[in-house]
Amino acid sequence: MPFDALFVPAELRAAVSDDAWVGAMVDAERALAAVEERLGIVPKGTAAAIDAAGPFDPEELAEDGRRVGNPAEPLVRRLPEHAHYGATSQDIVDTAAMLVARRALDLITAELRGVQRACATLAERHRDTVMAGRTLLQQATPTTFGLKAAQWLVATVAAERGLSVSMPAQLGGASGTLAPFGDRGPDVLAAYAQELGLDVPILPWHTNRIPIARLGAALAIAAGAVAKIATDVALLAQTEVGEVREAAGGGSSTMPHKRNPVGSTLARACASGAIAAGQQLLGDVHEHERAAGAWQAEWRALTDALALTGGAAASLREALEGLEVDADRMRANISDNTLSEARRLNIDAAAPEDYLGAAGAFVDRALEIYRKAYGG
Amino acid sequence: MPFDALFVPAELRAAVSDDAWVGAMVDAERALAAVEERLGIVPKGTAAAIDAAGPFDPEELAEDGRRVGNPAEPLVRRLPEHAHYGATSQDIVDTAAMLVARRALDLITAELRGVQRACATLAERHRDTVMAGRTLLQQATPTTFGLKAAQWLVATVAAERGLSVSMPAQLGGASGTLAPFGDRGPDVLAAYAQELGLDVPILPWHTNRIPIARLGAALAIAAGAVAKIATDVALLAQTEVGEVREAAGGGSSTMPHKRNPVGSTLARACASGAIAAGQQLLGDVHEHERAAGAWQAEWRALTDALALTGGAAASLREALEGLEVDADRMRANISDNTLSEARRLNIDAAAPEDYLGAAGAFVDRALEIYRKAYGG
Amino acid sequence: MPFDALFVPAELRAAVSDDAWVGAMVDAERALAAVEERLGIVPKGTAAAIDAAGPFDPEELAEDGRRVGNPAEPLVRRLPEHAHYGATSQDIVDTAAMLVARRALDLITAELRGVQRACATLAERHRDTVMAGRTLLQQATPTTFGLKAAQWLVATVAAERGLSVSMPAQLGGASGTLAPFGDRGPDVLAAYAQELGLDVPILPWHTNRIPIARLGAALAIAAGAVAKIATDVALLAQTEVGEVREAAGGGSSTMPHKRNPVGSTLARACASGAIAAGQQLLGDVHEHERAAGAWQAEWRALTDALALTGGAAASLREALEGLEVDADRMRANISDNTLSEARRLNIDAAAPEDYLGAAGAFVDRALEIYRKAYGG
Amino acid sequence: MPFDALFVPAELRAAVSDDAWVGAMVDAERALAAVEERLGIVPKGTAAAIDAAGPFDPEELAEDGRRVGNPAEPLVRRLPEHAHYGATSQDIVDTAAMLVARRALDLITAELRGVQRACATLAERHRDTVMAGRTLLQQATPTTFGLKAAQWLVATVAAERGLSVSMPAQLGGASGTLAPFGDRGPDVLAAYAQELGLDVPILPWHTNRIPIARLGAALAIAAGAVAKIATDVALLAQTEVGEVREAAGGGSSTMPHKRNPVGSTLARACASGAIAAGQQLLGDVHEHERAAGAWQAEWRALTDALALTGGAAASLREALEGLEVDADRMRANISDNTLSEARRLNIDAAAPEDYLGAAGAFVDRALEIYRKAYGG
Repeated sequence: MPFDALFVPAELRAAVSDDAWVGAMVDAERALAAVEERLGIVPKGTAAAIDAAGPFDPEELAEDGRRVGNPAEPLVRRLPEHAHYGATSQDIVDTAAMLVARRALDLITAELRGVQRACATLAERHRDTVMAGRTLLQQATPTTFGLKAAQWLVATVAAERGLSVSMPAQLGGASGTLAPFGDRGPDVLAAYAQELGLDVPILPWHTNRIPIARLGAALAIAAGAVAKIATDVALLAQTEVGEVREAAGGGSSTMPHKRNPVGSTLARACASGAIAAGQQLLGDVHEHERAAGAWQAEWRALTDALALTGGAAASLREALEGLEVDADRMRANISDNTLSEARRLNIDAAAPEDYLGAAGAFVDRALEIYRKAYGG
Repeated sequence: MPFDALFVPAELRAAVSDDAWVGAMVDAERALAAVEERLGIVPKGTAAAIDAAGPFDPEELAEDGRRVGNPAEPLVRRLPEHAHYGATSQDIVDTAAMLVARRALDLITAELRGVQRACATLAERHRDTVMAGRTLLQQATPTTFGLKAAQWLVATVAAERGLSVSMPAQLGGASGTLAPFGDRGPDVLAAYAQELGLDVPILPWHTNRIPIARLGAALAIAAGAVAKIATDVALLAQTEVGEVREAAGGGSSTMPHKRNPVGSTLARACASGAIAAGQQLLGDVHEHERAAGAWQAEWRALTDALALTGGAAASLREALEGLEVDADRMRANISDNTLSEARRLNIDAAAPEDYLGAAGAFVDRALEIYRKAYGG
Repeated sequence: MPFDALFVPAELRAAVSDDAWVGAMVDAERALAAVEERLGIVPKGTAAAIDAAGPFDPEELAEDGRRVGNPAEPLVRRLPEHAHYGATSQDIVDTAAMLVARRALDLITAELRGVQRACATLAERHRDTVMAGRTLLQQATPTTFGLKAAQWLVATVAAERGLSVSMPAQLGGASGTLAPFGDRGPDVLAAYAQELGLDVPILPWHTNRIPIARLGAALAIAAGAVAKIATDVALLAQTEVGEVREAAGGGSSTMPHKRNPVGSTLARACASGAIAAGQQLLGDVHEHERAAGAWQAEWRALTDALALTGGAAASLREALEGLEVDADRMRANISDNTLSEARRLNIDAAAPEDYLGAAGAFVDRALEIYRKAYGG
Repeated sequence: MPFDALFVPAELRAAVSDDAWVGAMVDAERALAAVEERLGIVPKGTAAAIDAAGPFDPEELAEDGRRVGNPAEPLVRRLPEHAHYGATSQDIVDTAAMLVARRALDLITAELRGVQRACATLAERHRDTVMAGRTLLQQATPTTFGLKAAQWLVATVAAERGLSVSMPAQLGGASGTLAPFGDRGPDVLAAYAQELGLDVPILPWHTNRIPIARLGAALAIAAGAVAKIATDVALLAQTEVGEVREAAGGGSSTMPHKRNPVGSTLARACASGAIAAGQQLLGDVHEHERAAGAWQAEWRALTDALALTGGAAASLREALEGLEVDADRMRANISDNTLSEARRLNIDAAAPEDYLGAAGAFVDRALEIYRKAYGG
């Protein structure tokens, strides 16, 4: 990804880097060896020897992996004897994918929490700040900025919850039967998953990619929720609307004093890529017991979906944290048409404030749900 | 959709037809009026008058709707006085979308249950039918056809569960504040949702499209699970493999005696469209309080995602229900290389049957989960 | 597609209807018979007998087609003796797809020409109408509405040109060898294509889907060009900007006097679906000599891509033809910041008009290209 | 992209790397300065000073670019005085995108030429090698492996031709009017494009993204053509079919002697990502004179589309160059059903060889076109 430091926070970049992938593969191999040691399948010391091995150069593993179509086989050839017993390459790479995803999801979640915090603050502060509702990009009846922020809050809470997908370990051996373990296969699988803190799958899922598809969809949905908020911010920040302003918005190379909605812009850019990556994870079919291509395609798509969803959330969080809200402008922008329209529907209303219906109650409800969820 | 009777069962076509959409819109209006009658907001008899109105010609509504960009406004103008009080067009169309989806999901679920039943039968019957595992389209170590069918079963059970998404009613009025109802807005919303048997949303979700996105993703994931099974069937049915055969597979116009995997083919075709429609539902951003385009685009995408996921499941169900399995051919196809490979890994194995590991246990586990889920 | 009359003009709906598809299939069969008559392959009168057959009920063909996975085989069984000699179902359906596409493209092109005409009129009329340039949704240095319209014009001209893709007839027989024709196969193919006014393909293209992919991409690109213009219109029509207004923009069901950008909204909605359909046509792989699913999936995707691209163009054309432009508001909206910025870059500029650079020359260039292309 | 060395050749990785992007941005700035020097707009020596500046750390530029949302502004601040006169950030990044794409396309084209060469060799060598045609993954009437290879050849030639899209330089200044250049804007634009060997655009194309969309579509189409061939190879290489074998196919980590179709697998994996990236480039809308997100999203999508299309072609080329073809197996695999079917259609045919129709003529035609195109 060109200029990834422009889009993705450093910690998240590290969490989905090649080094992180290789580290997670080694974690999987070590966990497998640890379990096998305990069960007497491999000699004591195998896990420790795996620990002591390395470091491994991801690029070297990748280049070497061209022979076989994956980076696990080259890694295994560099590991001590007895490592990888009973496993197939996909076991290690799929498990590593889950480990990488879990670490990345922690960071993504933290960013989404930051977005929620900022939304909650805005919702609370602007609970009664009246502004024009806008439908089809035209002013409609009035609403409040608090309700708009509450809507953002509710969506981000739902998006975060959606990321709580099952994250199963992978272990099946060559054809998914765990044959090398005889009767003990299911026990090895369960112990291995527990060792890694991952879910125990019902069956190996080499070609049942619902876990990956769900993760991809959840990331795309989260990125979409971020993009919606970022779009609203960018629209509200328009010169002619002027109701919000990003504090950090920098100028362009030609117009240094212009206040661009840079955070929203970066968030929308990231979301576009995250959604495309998530969509890709929904589309490919995996043949028989291991796919010839669809599996290998997931590594990039998953990495991008993670990095870019997190990048979108981080940029939006920064934008919202520093958001300057011009409540006076919000009030002043309400057009006469909007008021007369509101009055037509409710003849007793003398001002926009009289036409807000459940806006305040909805803000309270959203904040309550948010606080219950996080003890905020 | 050209030739939709080729792809989608008649009942499902009816459930997502224009008539069904209009009927669901009328259901939404009637439910709203019924609630408003009870609360004294509109006169008694309004709901009954809505019931007595119609029928409405969907094409006429659509053509008339070009003026305003949606089919609800023309419907409302044809409804009796007091109908639609406090609602906006999107309230009615979004609620109708949920009603249409719910009815379609019942039919889709029934088809997925049929797929599960067929998979369970195959898994049980072929629990010990040995066959070649295949990775990267090459024979790997042995597995059983029972385990393959159990994998299909587990994926389809997961896919069906994934369809249990929240299906909220929609009611917010022009800007999502429920302004015309004053303080009673949240109560009206809750009663309206209950009247329709839909979920009560936390807030109106005019531009928080997570409910639609989740539905789209769940349908795409279900279609993907179907496509995976259909692909396996088509691959196993290849002339050179010959391990399964669709009973109903018809010939081509040039080669009438050829036994084509027609059900799998139609399932894969439907899945391609269902996935594309589901992907579309993940991608659009909805501005402010009502989107200028992204909302209106959902109607086709959602309809297609429902129709084609159901069509995929139906065709696969038919294929699996009539599937002829050639267990002898499965055994005979196992190549010597595969056997020697299996032996290399487990020197005591004299036959493929000795190298099946947890295959049987996995089949049992899958069947147990399936039976628990459905009392099967 | 629900409410398709809301999105797609009647003539275009007819051009891509099931009846149109069946009619095109019959056209293909008749053309084949006519060529074969001339070459003495089938008896005189076969083509006339095909002409006299029918009418055929598309739904009946589709239902009957479930046995075999396509609608051509059922059609052939209803045609007179000697029809379809040497052809396979895909020959007829692919050729019909091209005939349907060609007729639809004529209508789409007419709508795009209408868009161009409207853009050219706006560009000419507003060649010197100064307005704020807007980057990242913030006012930047000034431009003219004429240049904006000229940009739209240039994009639409390019989009239309992109639709001039090769439209080959399809004829290959069961495995693409034209075996039933012996040595005469290539001659039959060429004569058949000429009879239909389609391109002669280098080889049968049963599983080389570049013609379909190019068509899908060209439609998605055209829809994208339309969506860009529609988005600009909707943004300029915002209440707070107020620089343009759609003449026909209707009110909402709650706010009848609101002037919504309905044409832009419908154009954006159609474009979303057209792009998704076009994307789908880029994604599937066709196995060996005929695909098991990827082929059958194209019929819906192609139909939608055609209908929705045309629908997008038609709605945008209407929006642009009736566009009310408020040149005074454009001038008044230019913010002081923008002016001072422009002055900073060009100290001699006293007014926005002094800072327009090549805007006028660019408008002239765009109009010249447009007029050369169409003698306008 | 994790493990990119597994998927993309080193030279292509370098061509689309961050360093390459920054280098191309510097090239654009230097070309602009050179033109402006000649026209007396900036002092002599500016271009040379730009040449002497640097090196620039892409990561530093990217991190610094977060303030403003792009990497060009930070670069400009590191360049000598007078650099960047009259340009906006997007001018430089868009031009750099075209330069990066052009260099990458040279490498992609070279790989596609290699694929074509291999296909041509196979088509010529196996012009008369009879094999089963396969439709819906079932044996149909016979064909030749020569014709199959000729089909691959024709598709790859078309895919390569499709890559010859217009590659315009970008120069418009802040709002696309080239205002800082007064009347000379169009001349500066033309000279700048010529200096870089890029096409002269009709107008600046900051938000008319047809050039990018066409490039994305052409790359997706090329990747799709590669995926089709790779799929055919993987299907023919199946254990039960055994008609081809990749020479370099490596074993798995569990089954070292297995001959996997690794090149085809990697090609399919790359194609999945390339198509998703190409699809992304068709989908986003660019607002007004510069997009708030859609533009910034292109950099990753374009880079991936280039890298992965090239990676797909390179892996396929390797697979085809070393392809072992088993003509005897091809002949032996033809099922009796296929023969009787062929005979039914043509009663004089005694052997598959008698039922090949135009297969040989089609091979000759494909080779002729290929040789004409490249003097091969």
